[in-house]
Parts: sequence; structure tokens; C-alpha cells
Amino acid sequence: MTQPDLLSSAQLAHSLLLLRQQAPLVHCMTNDVVQTFTANVLLALRASPAMVIDAQEAAQFAGFADALVINVGTLTRERSAAMLTAVKAAQQAGKPWTLDPVAVGALTLRTEFCQQLLPLQPAAIRGNASEILALAQQSAGGRGVDSVHQADAALDAAAALAQRYRTLVAVTGEVDYVTDGSRMLAIPGGSPLMTRVVGTGCALSAVVAAFASLPGDRLQHIAAACGVMALAGEQAARSVAGPGSFVAAFIDALWTLEVAV
Amino acid sequence: MTQPDLLSSAQLAHSLLLLRQQAPLVHCMTNDVVQTFTANVLLALRASPAMVIDAQEAAQFAGFADALVINVGTLTRERSAAMLTAVKAAQQAGKPWTLDPVAVGALTLRTEFCQQLLPLQPAAIRGNASEILALAQQSAGGRGVDSVHQADAALDAAAALAQRYRTLVAVTGEVDYVTDGSRMLAIPGGSPLMTRVVGTGCALSAVVAAFASLPGDRLQHIAAACGVMALAGEQAARSVAGPGSFVAAFIDALWTLEVAV
Amino acid sequence: MTQPDLLSSAQLAHSLLLLRQQAPLVHCMTNDVVQTFTANVLLALRASPAMVIDAQEAAQFAGFADALVINVGTLTRERSAAMLTAVKAAQQAGKPWTLDPVAVGALTLRTEFCQQLLPLQPAAIRGNASEILALAQQSAGGRGVDSVHQADAALDAAAALAQRYRTLVAVTGEVDYVTDGSRMLAIPGGSPLMTRVVGTGCALSAVVAAFASLPGDRLQHIAAACGVMALAGEQAARSVAGPGSFVAAFIDALWTLEVAV
Repeated sequence: MTQPDLLSSAQLAHSLLLLRQQAPLVHCMTNDVVQTFTANVLLALRASPAMVIDAQEAAQFAGFADALVINVGTLTRERSAAMLTAVKAAQQAGKPWTLDPVAVGALTLRTEFCQQLLPLQPAAIRGNASEILALAQQSAGGRGVDSVHQADAALDAAAALAQRYRTLVAVTGEVDYVTDGSRMLAIPGGSPLMTRVVGTGCALSAVVAAFASLPGDRLQHIAAACGVMALAGEQAARSVAGPGSFVAAFIDALWTLEVAV
Repeated sequence: MTQPDLLSSAQLAHSLLLLRQQAPLVHCMTNDVVQTFTANVLLALRASPAMVIDAQEAAQFAGFADALVINVGTLTRERSAAMLTAVKAAQQAGKPWTLDPVAVGALTLRTEFCQQLLPLQPAAIRGNASEILALAQQSAGGRGVDSVHQADAALDAAAALAQRYRTLVAVTGEVDYVTDGSRMLAIPGGSPLMTRVVGTGCALSAVVAAFASLPGDRLQHIAAACGVMALAGEQAARSVAGPGSFVAAFIDALWTLEVAV
Repeated sequence: MTQPDLLSSAQLAHSLLLLRQQAPLVHCMTNDVVQTFTANVLLALRASPAMVIDAQEAAQFAGFADALVINVGTLTRERSAAMLTAVKAAQQAGKPWTLDPVAVGALTLRTEFCQQLLPLQPAAIRGNASEILALAQQSAGGRGVDSVHQADAALDAAAALAQRYRTLVAVTGEVDYVTDGSRMLAIPGGSPLMTRVVGTGCALSAVVAAFASLPGDRLQHIAAACGVMALAGEQAARSVAGPGSFVAAFIDALWTLEVAV
């Protein structure tokens, strides 16, 4: 694989503009902890969130939604069944779906479930280095939900995963990387405060799902999803006293984000 | 039906004062996304929220609570059973219950469940135009959780629903309307930012439930519930940079709201 | 029992410093309403939250986590089974677990479940006066989730509970008290705004769980947990317009807290 290219401001601006125009309806089957934050992040970007969780309803909703995100943070056996139904319905309806393999590796239920989902053609996978390594079966995972690896330690695993499942993989950390197995884009930026607020990674996965629904170069769009969140994080961090005030400033930054084209 | 009357400031002030005095305990069986925001909205108004969800406990809790709100946003079959038990217990205990038919119409489980609940004498129903039209079986519903109709397009449906089930219907949007099928009150105001924050509609339903427990003119009280939220939304929108900072400002406004009598 | 001693600033500073150094991973099985706030409170203190809820995964997670908190606020029969599995796994792994008996007393499922948990050697129990009285079977509990008793009315019950189950009991209110049945520490402070924001008590229980994992004098550490929250509450309340802005200011205060040693 060649060295990663930097995502340009022009690429980011193009994708963000497109997202605001398309305002995709994002079906979120996500964990208990990040529901509100995920919804508000999507709304601030002009997308529409919808959290439909019953198996039957989730299958029906594939006909309406533009994208689906599956996040296994608070998985249960019952929820995994509903998620599987939703993924299959999205697949049949030709809607892109994105996987967030939260804390995959050490915990059996979610690890087996993610392995079951991988062949179902995800449009994208978004995880931290430990999660991507575990998903590629190159590590036993992180400590809880946090990564014990730097993002660049997982680049080979990300590329292998992308090639094997013909998907895009975003491995995020201090620098984010998005790859399709041959090309790779790097997105620096963000703020350490983002790791002191619950749900920035999970919300990013929902944003990746939203951007994956846009027409055009999906690799670029998903890199832009990472770039938009990193940029808003930087802007927000400049003016706040701590992670409490960061949350509001971050959402405001997503709302007002202006990117030079 | 005659033309709607405007809710007066004096009416709003009377109902708000009463709510703060009575501090009703509101049993909330609501969706996963809006739990925290709903609780904080009720607390800022001096009401007490309680989210009791197990069927058996929910039935017991009807003896303690002053009001119940049922919100089908993240319905599952199991939750619908617990909600039905809670509604029947509230009915038997003579406690008013309020229905929020989130995204009713296109999704079968919630649509059938709401139709099952309607004959159980709700004190009030609060929805957007698409939801009220769908509940009155005059439309197939909205797009996800957002309305594709203006509130005034659903006024006839709201009145028909109110008459048929002898309840009050609040159909909310840029202007809110509350009707008992013969009288109708209109409540203008609010802010577009309220549609960019998840849960303002769902929280309003919990506030409607709280106001429905007050002695006196229930139509006026429920219109006041809409008016209080609209007024707080207007006040909050004046001073904020976006939907992130709006949330805190909105709760603060509910807390400090002073209404000229 | 002797009169309570005041927790000193030096004790508080010592425990807080230790917590920030150890950064414990806290397994939270808590209620639907307080997930985000609980996680953000722990993160602001430099601890790591992890909400793992499936029975099998929760049992596995006992090997990774440093502490467990069980909060019965939105208990269901299924959740109680997963919680019981988690408690037993924590016990076997020698990890301390903390009980928050939300609204115990009047509601049968949670009351019976908490009585079932008590013999399983909790490291700590954190509740308001009504909850502690109900748990000690000296009262039928509060009104919803709020206490109808002052904390000092439950001091004898707290001491009896601590002695009977060889645990530490924190009974919190305007003044907080922590006892092991013979010693008792008192922690004044806090702000009335803390009762107008959902989850401050529940988050405190998670913080108690985190502090219970520290080496040294557990009674002092748990009193420090109460003291840290009270101090942050006081600082936050000074600068805010209401409970909305209080949330962010409170998290920021936890993040920046400096305590004179």
C-alpha cells in the first residue's frame, strides 16, 4: 500500500456541502450511552437521525432510510437479532450500512456477532486501532472501549480488512485513516478533549454512515466525515473550560462549520 | 369547528404557576433517545420525572404517579406490553395518560399499538401533523420522525380524533394547536432550532402529561404546556450560537421563565 | 455510634489524586436515563466508563473492570438476571461492586432484587435517606426517585445496614454521610441545583464505585467521592443561570478540580 494522502480542504468542503444538501435519513441502531449525542450530531449536520430498534420495524425502516449504522456498544442477544434483520433489509434495499465494532475482541457475544456481520457487505467500518486489529483477528482488543494501540499500528489490519470484505475502513485516533485496501487518506486534527466526552467515536460512526450515502467517491466522503468531526473538535476545544462545555461547543461547531473551498 | 383562539399570556401564566405549585410526579415510558432531556425538562419546570419500565413495576407506580406519558419512539413488542399494563393501571387509578405516537403510520408495530391504545381514554395526544394524520388514518405518516405536513393541514384530523376518542389533541409545528374537537387554541412561537435538537417534541409530550394532571380547564393547561415550551425556545434561541448551546439555554429558560399575568 | 467526623480537604485531595492516577475502568450497569451523564462524569474524573449489559459479556467484563456499579433505576426482570451474573463475576474476580437502590421500597421487583443482592458483599451502597431506610426495611421508601426524608433521619439505618452486610453505606442529601457501622464521616456542601438535574445521585454511585477500587482507606475514599461531587456542584452553581448550564459547568468543575492538600 502506498503512503496515505492528506484529505484536502476542498474535498472536505465538497462532501460537507453535499451532505447538507442531501440531508440523509440515518437509521441508528446504536448503544444506550450515545443515543442523544449521536442524534444531535446528525441534526447539527442537517442529517436526520431515526432510532428504530424493533426487528420488524427496523426491517421496514430500510425502505425509508438512506443509511444504517450498527453499533454494538451495548449489545444483547435480542438486539443482535434485530440488527441482523436490519442489515439484511438494508442490503436488499441497496442502502449502505456502517459497522462500529465497539470494544470488539475480548467480549465473545459482540466479537462473534461482528464476524457474522462482516460478510454482509458493509459500506464502511469505523473503529479505533484496537477494534480494527481485533476485527482483523490480529489482536485481542483494547481495554474496555478505549484503544491501547495508536491508529497507525492498525493500518495494515485496516487495509487487509478492507480488501477481504470489499469495504472501507476508518481507523481513528490522534490521526484518522480511511482506506479501501489500496488508497489511503489521512485526516489529522481533532482534540484530546474528544476522548474525555462519551460518544464522539460512536457519533462519528453515524456520521460516516451518513456520508457513505452520498453519491460520488465514498472513500473521500468518509474521510470528510472524519475531517468534519476533527475540525469541529478543534474549533470547540479552543473556547471551552473542559469536557462539559465542550459538548455544546462541538455541536455548535458542526452547525456553523464553514470550510474554505 | 370555529377558528382557533390564541392562548393568552394570562392563561399560560395561570397554568404554569399551578404546575410549579403542584409539582406533579410524571411516569415516563419514553424512547431511548430522549430520556435525559425529558427528565431535565420536567425538573426545570419543578415537576418530577420517573422512568419506571418493567410491566409489574409500571403498574404499581400508577398508584404514586400523577400522570403517565407513553412514547412509542423506540418501541419493541416487550415494551408495548409493559406500556399497555401501565396505561390500564393509570386508567384504573384515575390518573391521566398522554400518548406520543412518534413516527406512527409507516411502521406496523407502533401503528397497531397506538390504535390499540386509543380506546383506552388518553387524556391527551401530542404529535406532529404527519403523526396526527396517520393516527386519524388520513395519511401514511411522515419521513422518519419528522413531519412532512404543516400543523394546520392536520387540524381536521386532530378534531376528528379528539371527538372520536373524547380526548385532547395537540398537533405541533411552527404553530401549535390544541383541540377537544369543538374548541381550539393556537399557540405560535418557538424557534427553528427546536427541530435541530433531538427530543423537544418528545419532552413536550411529557410536559403535556404533566399539565394534564392539573385541576381546571385541561384544554387551556395543555395549550399552556405548548406555550411554555415555545416561549422557552424563543428565549433560548436569542442568545445561542447553535443547537449545542441551545439545549442548556432552553432548560435554563424553563427554569427561570417569568410570565406576565 | 459516635458523632460523625468531617471529611478534611487533605483526605479529599489524597483520594482524588489517587483516582486520577489509577484511572479505574468502571463497569456500569445503570438505568436508561443517566447513561451519558454517568459516563461523562467518570471521564471528567479521568476514570473510564464501560456500559456492558449482556449477561455473558458482563460476566466476562469482570476480568477487565476495576469496579462495578449496579443501579436499579430502570430495572426489568431480564436486566436483573444480567446484573446478578455480573455481581457474582465481580465477586469471584475480587472486584468491588457498588449498589444504587434507586426508588427501592414501594416497587416490588427492585426491592426484592436489592434484598437478593445485599448478601453478595457489596463494597458500598449509595442512596438517599428514603432508599437507605427502605433497604434497611425501616420505611416503605420515597415518592418516586426523590427522598421524603432528610439524610440524618437514616443514619441509624445506614449504620445497621453497614454492620449487617459488612459494607459501607453512603446516605446522601443536603449533607452526605458515609459509615461502616462504627466510624462515620460527614460531607457537607453541594448545591440545590443538583436535585434539579437528573442523574447526579446515580452518577455519584458510579463515582463511589470508582473510588471504592482505590487502595487504602475505603471509608475515606467513598467520603471523598461524595466530597468531590459536592465541591464540583458548589463551584458550578456559582456561575450558572439554571440547571441547563449547570450540567456543563459541573462536568468542567470535575475536570479542573484543584484541592488544597
